[in-house]
Amino acid sequence: MALTQKPARIRLGMVGGGRDAFIGAVHRIASRMDDHYELVAGAFSSTAEKSNASASDLGVTHDRAYSSFTAMAEAEALRADGIEAVSIVTPNHLHGAVATEFLKRGIHVICDKPLTSTLDDAKKLVKQAQQSSALFVLTHNYTGYPMVRQARQMISDGQLGEIRLVQAEYPQDWLSTNLEDTGQKQAGWRTDPARSGLGGCIGDIGTHAFNLSTFVSGLELDSLCADLDTFVPGRQLDDNAHIMLRYKGGAKGMIWSSQIAPGNENGLRLRVYGSTGGLEWKQEDPNYLWFTPLGEPKRLLTRSGSGALDAANDVSRIPAGHPEGYLEGFANLYTAAAHAINARKNGNEKEDTSLLPSVQDGLAGVAFVTAAVKSSENGSTWEQLDI
Amino acid sequence: MALTQKPARIRLGMVGGGRDAFIGAVHRIASRMDDHYELVAGAFSSTAEKSNASASDLGVTHDRAYSSFTAMAEAEALRADGIEAVSIVTPNHLHGAVATEFLKRGIHVICDKPLTSTLDDAKKLVKQAQQSSALFVLTHNYTGYPMVRQARQMISDGQLGEIRLVQAEYPQDWLSTNLEDTGQKQAGWRTDPARSGLGGCIGDIGTHAFNLSTFVSGLELDSLCADLDTFVPGRQLDDNAHIMLRYKGGAKGMIWSSQIAPGNENGLRLRVYGSTGGLEWKQEDPNYLWFTPLGEPKRLLTRSGSGALDAANDVSRIPAGHPEGYLEGFANLYTAAAHAINARKNGNEKEDTSLLPSVQDGLAGVAFVTAAVKSSENGSTWEQLDI
Amino acid sequence: MALTQKPARIRLGMVGGGRDAFIGAVHRIASRMDDHYELVAGAFSSTAEKSNASASDLGVTHDRAYSSFTAMAEAEALRADGIEAVSIVTPNHLHGAVATEFLKRGIHVICDKPLTSTLDDAKKLVKQAQQSSALFVLTHNYTGYPMVRQARQMISDGQLGEIRLVQAEYPQDWLSTNLEDTGQKQAGWRTDPARSGLGGCIGDIGTHAFNLSTFVSGLELDSLCADLDTFVPGRQLDDNAHIMLRYKGGAKGMIWSSQIAPGNENGLRLRVYGSTGGLEWKQEDPNYLWFTPLGEPKRLLTRSGSGALDAANDVSRIPAGHPEGYLEGFANLYTAAAHAINARKNGNEKEDTSLLPSVQDGLAGVAFVTAAVKSSENGSTWEQLDI
Amino acid sequence: MALTQKPARIRLGMVGGGRDAFIGAVHRIASRMDDHYELVAGAFSSTAEKSNASASDLGVTHDRAYSSFTAMAEAEALRADGIEAVSIVTPNHLHGAVATEFLKRGIHVICDKPLTSTLDDAKKLVKQAQQSSALFVLTHNYTGYPMVRQARQMISDGQLGEIRLVQAEYPQDWLSTNLEDTGQKQAGWRTDPARSGLGGCIGDIGTHAFNLSTFVSGLELDSLCADLDTFVPGRQLDDNAHIMLRYKGGAKGMIWSSQIAPGNENGLRLRVYGSTGGLEWKQEDPNYLWFTPLGEPKRLLTRSGSGALDAANDVSRIPAGHPEGYLEGFANLYTAAAHAINARKNGNEKEDTSLLPSVQDGLAGVAFVTAAVKSSENGSTWEQLDI
Repeated sequence: MALTQKPARIRLGMVGGGRDAFIGAVHRIASRMDDHYELVAGAFSSTAEKSNASASDLGVTHDRAYSSFTAMAEAEALRADGIEAVSIVTPNHLHGAVATEFLKRGIHVICDKPLTSTLDDAKKLVKQAQQSSALFVLTHNYTGYPMVRQARQMISDGQLGEIRLVQAEYPQDWLSTNLEDTGQKQAGWRTDPARSGLGGCIGDIGTHAFNLSTFVSGLELDSLCADLDTFVPGRQLDDNAHIMLRYKGGAKGMIWSSQIAPGNENGLRLRVYGSTGGLEWKQEDPNYLWFTPLGEPKRLLTRSGSGALDAANDVSRIPAGHPEGYLEGFANLYTAAAHAINARKNGNEKEDTSLLPSVQDGLAGVAFVTAAVKSSENGSTWEQLDI
Repeated sequence: MALTQKPARIRLGMVGGGRDAFIGAVHRIASRMDDHYELVAGAFSSTAEKSNASASDLGVTHDRAYSSFTAMAEAEALRADGIEAVSIVTPNHLHGAVATEFLKRGIHVICDKPLTSTLDDAKKLVKQAQQSSALFVLTHNYTGYPMVRQARQMISDGQLGEIRLVQAEYPQDWLSTNLEDTGQKQAGWRTDPARSGLGGCIGDIGTHAFNLSTFVSGLELDSLCADLDTFVPGRQLDDNAHIMLRYKGGAKGMIWSSQIAPGNENGLRLRVYGSTGGLEWKQEDPNYLWFTPLGEPKRLLTRSGSGALDAANDVSRIPAGHPEGYLEGFANLYTAAAHAINARKNGNEKEDTSLLPSVQDGLAGVAFVTAAVKSSENGSTWEQLDI
Repeated sequence: MALTQKPARIRLGMVGGGRDAFIGAVHRIASRMDDHYELVAGAFSSTAEKSNASASDLGVTHDRAYSSFTAMAEAEALRADGIEAVSIVTPNHLHGAVATEFLKRGIHVICDKPLTSTLDDAKKLVKQAQQSSALFVLTHNYTGYPMVRQARQMISDGQLGEIRLVQAEYPQDWLSTNLEDTGQKQAGWRTDPARSGLGGCIGDIGTHAFNLSTFVSGLELDSLCADLDTFVPGRQLDDNAHIMLRYKGGAKGMIWSSQIAPGNENGLRLRVYGSTGGLEWKQEDPNYLWFTPLGEPKRLLTRSGSGALDAANDVSRIPAGHPEGYLEGFANLYTAAAHAINARKNGNEKEDTSLLPSVQDGLAGVAFVTAAVKSSENGSTWEQLDI
Repeated sequence: MALTQKPARIRLGMVGGGRDAFIGAVHRIASRMDDHYELVAGAFSSTAEKSNASASDLGVTHDRAYSSFTAMAEAEALRADGIEAVSIVTPNHLHGAVATEFLKRGIHVICDKPLTSTLDDAKKLVKQAQQSSALFVLTHNYTGYPMVRQARQMISDGQLGEIRLVQAEYPQDWLSTNLEDTGQKQAGWRTDPARSGLGGCIGDIGTHAFNLSTFVSGLELDSLCADLDTFVPGRQLDDNAHIMLRYKGGAKGMIWSSQIAPGNENGLRLRVYGSTGGLEWKQEDPNYLWFTPLGEPKRLLTRSGSGALDAANDVSRIPAGHPEGYLEGFANLYTAAAHAINARKNGNEKEDTSLLPSVQDGLAGVAFVTAAVKSSENGSTWEQLDI
């Protein structure tokens, strides 16, 4: 009976994620799921009163509730019991500056996507991360779903033959009207170029579709050709994107991303076709993966079910038929980050982080947005990523 | 108790559709479904022996089994009991010449799609049809499905608000390998430029997706931007097409059409989104139509079920829950053609044929193929239809 | 090039099936689908005027429009061009008497289910059919679906191991209110003991579920235990049935049949489980069959797709992904009957009719209804079929 | 900006749930999800070494790792920082004795189902719980799913009219072979009468189906009529159960529960039909609820989507389209228990616990198993629950 003492919880801070925020709460649950983190500090808001209120909600003591991320980074770095990692869940335009403050102090960063609001910021942040001893993880959370891992492994194992097509789509409907004019916070910053950057829908969710396409297929993008639109009157950023893709090596793809498609809640869907088979996965029914080998009956693979590979089982918690969801997939990134952080603490730098979305993945995402906007403005030219 | 005598069956001939053909048998069943036609003559093959054999199979007397469509047109036009209508189910490149022979003799034409293999032929055929007293129907059969009619009516009634997006796809997998090199007849002519024309996959099924998009949405295409591929080595025509669409009035769309996507049998699917709602229909489950009004629960409309409109009920035969399929949808075109033909016989030229795919629709389809090929060859330029 | 002359169409008569009837029209389309029959006579109604009106609708000449099935049988039997087969689509209580008139004159009978309204009538009809040279076919049409045939074959081939469970259900909702009091004809006779017999819902659709269970599983019923209900006030016959089943050899099953389950249109569904695998089929999506071998990924078999057996392909008309439906499945019975009739004409009595629902199947169905009613009245005793 | 300090985490112990156990890990994640508990003690195994090993895995200090639940109850009750609540995740036969030890010391109990392995034990435990000041919660976790709460609320609000039918099923396949003979722990105790009690499948999962039926419908059972089977040779307890139900007031129902139905992972499914509408929910796709009002289009309600009621939204964490799963539903019970416990701490005994499965619900479940076994042994008699 081997005795392996569970490592102590990693001391975690958070920037952003105060009351009314959506993604902050997700990060907190994800950090708790497998019991690897303890939230002990936060700059939940730039208003002291609001940050304090959130701290009270969350059981964070008031001496560690900050209204400035810089102050937080400075103070926590000085404490013996200071945070070891920080979750960044602010609007996009702050990601770079916040991450930099922590990275330069050796505090690990778990940052929401997209990486930054500008390509320039993204490139700077890549350098900063490379110079830091700390880990940088970008929460492209959809890569954490077990059946996404299964798909990636099957493709890598050659079960689809040579990949020919990658069809991705990510339709939503919550911005079908000018919600941003009603004071809704989530809509407000996402449709504001100052806080979101060049891309609206394409930055918010198109980057997920792009990231997932490459994560699963193992392909690298060569170029894209885009047609972006803003359908809701008065909106400043795109709310619908049509993109054709050319991957290196000859595969092709499409991405449709939209926030104005009524009836679609969070419809991320990926289909990959190779010379000998196909795969299909839908985020809204994430425990299933269709595998369609050419000339054989269609097969519905289930999480933890027959045919599930280690790649999927390693990130599953419960048996087949007991559905896992969005929070579990998200938590898989936090848990992998915890393993990497603990490995470093133990002097083991070799922990494999290849499945964790990196700062380079983040740069690719921002470059994707930038190229799509450029292509669309130029009348749908083929553009390569500037990375 | 009104006594309305059922009209006599329309005497029907067929060109093409001999043994081993697929679509000829479909046309024959479709013509019988509602008892409006009697097949009495055919040039089922250009080989006399084969045409005779097919005639025997089909109960057509040998004196009316022809090996030349011209001979058939001439002979039948002279008979007192000659055919009143002809079904054309040959490879694409013959459609124009065959149709012309019958149209100029006042024999009604029911022709498979695409209209012709070249834009030039298509334009000539349009003129020929306009000069003829006979009816010309193109069997874009997917327009005959009840729930497609429902969708068209709902959009026309404004239930989706202003249309913003039309997403169409038509993936198949049967040409994932070089089936044409095995002697398979269906694959042979569809991948042969001499018989199919400029387009492979895009002509065979992409035209259906395009036709359905405009039929349902009521929109007119402004221009398209395409990226066509041939993935199977040695193949001469495209087997995969990615297309972005701009409709007049500002709506946008995409078409993905493929014959190399393993796991897809006949995956025609249409989604339309407007400012206040969405619709989704899949050909493989044709008795259902998703209607997703913005801000309300999703609704699954069923053929003949609650919420079905006259537009759908008029072309349904049996109650809800008793699935109708491809043949019934196809038959709806034949039956509508019969009504139009009988109306003309009775001197009533006013029979509404607006729901029947016309020669102009056929021209649009060929122009669509031509524009897509041109755009793709030019590196994905935006091209308008030459119609 | 073999020349096999298509046999002449079989001359068909119909009893019942006048205006407003549902199932008569279904039989007529089914008879035309594969071009084996010609409707030439009918007693479409017991009112001469109505029968004549239907004859006009259907292109039947008025000299062969009868208002008495006895007169029709007599007259047609005397004509040189008299009918060779008759379709019986009256309410249940007339099936026996009508069938007898034709059977005793050697005219083949294609009769709607259930066989009769009483067990006594059923037994008499079995004798009558056995004494007749004519064929008797009961249209348990759901056995005609290709994927039902596939399921039967797979079980017969041992792909499920030893059968343990047969779960059948057949919910509808159209009698959730007292529709019969509104003058609706279909509801009227189905809820009337004088015309339907002992069973309401259980006779109308429960018999289909029972028939399908044994057809697919190959099992024979040992006994049943039932609890029938009438939920709609004022109704005389059951509108909901719960039944537990014991098959010979130890397998068990359940049947739920209901006409008061809102949201269910025609929800016939069958699941069979053996020691090594399971199957699931739904009538409303009939082109699919789930096959779930124990310990392997679930497989979705499709009509004409990979994995489809001859048993299914033999009764399919068009390729995978082109959905067939209720009418095609129904037509498969008519076509098999035509083959048997033509074989007899040619002196070949050996034509295999084992897949055609027989008069014995009909007797089993009526015995099933009788046993269920008895069990329920006795407080859910286990009852065997009196056959 | 209101400041409400988050209550301190409730100190939690666990009995059972060592290495290789399934449900213990589920309880632990559920307790952490919303940050209301801290696991500080455990009798994870009756072997000291194993209990210690589990403690190490879980970060529980060794002084609070017990090998006897009695010792644990005694020791913890004496500590100033002793546990406030205990999770019981042992095999069924221990539930009663373990719960009693903690209840009598005023320690709140969160106990897995079924309540006990015998009806006698269950009745004793009810008394014990009634005499205790502590809370008793039975983890019928499926009641915690948001769309289950939605269904319950809709029925309670009268949206289905008068309830007529409750159809429940719970098929699995993991015991299709004699897994218990391979040494698999989960199979071992579940098929052992000494540890599970009278019921096998019916106790393990049939009780869930029964509990869910009454929770959602609001109905009370009058009597049941059962046919239980053991299909796997050598097995001592039932592995398949067919049950007909009569509810007080005239509604009827069925339950099918099985662990030998290949292809079914965890197929709990509930359908309820009333005079004016129906509902359908499947555990494996828990974020959806079909609502089918009679005479209107079918509606697919989604968690947090349009049409979601407070009853569902109150127990949802993230937006529509971001799937929640089994763990979140389970956690909803833990969180509600925490609210109740904290309310009691604050002297507020009025916290509404009506949605939390109670010891009485547990008694009903054991009585259900007992009645089903009795009915089946007596040849399917109608039996009432002995409660």
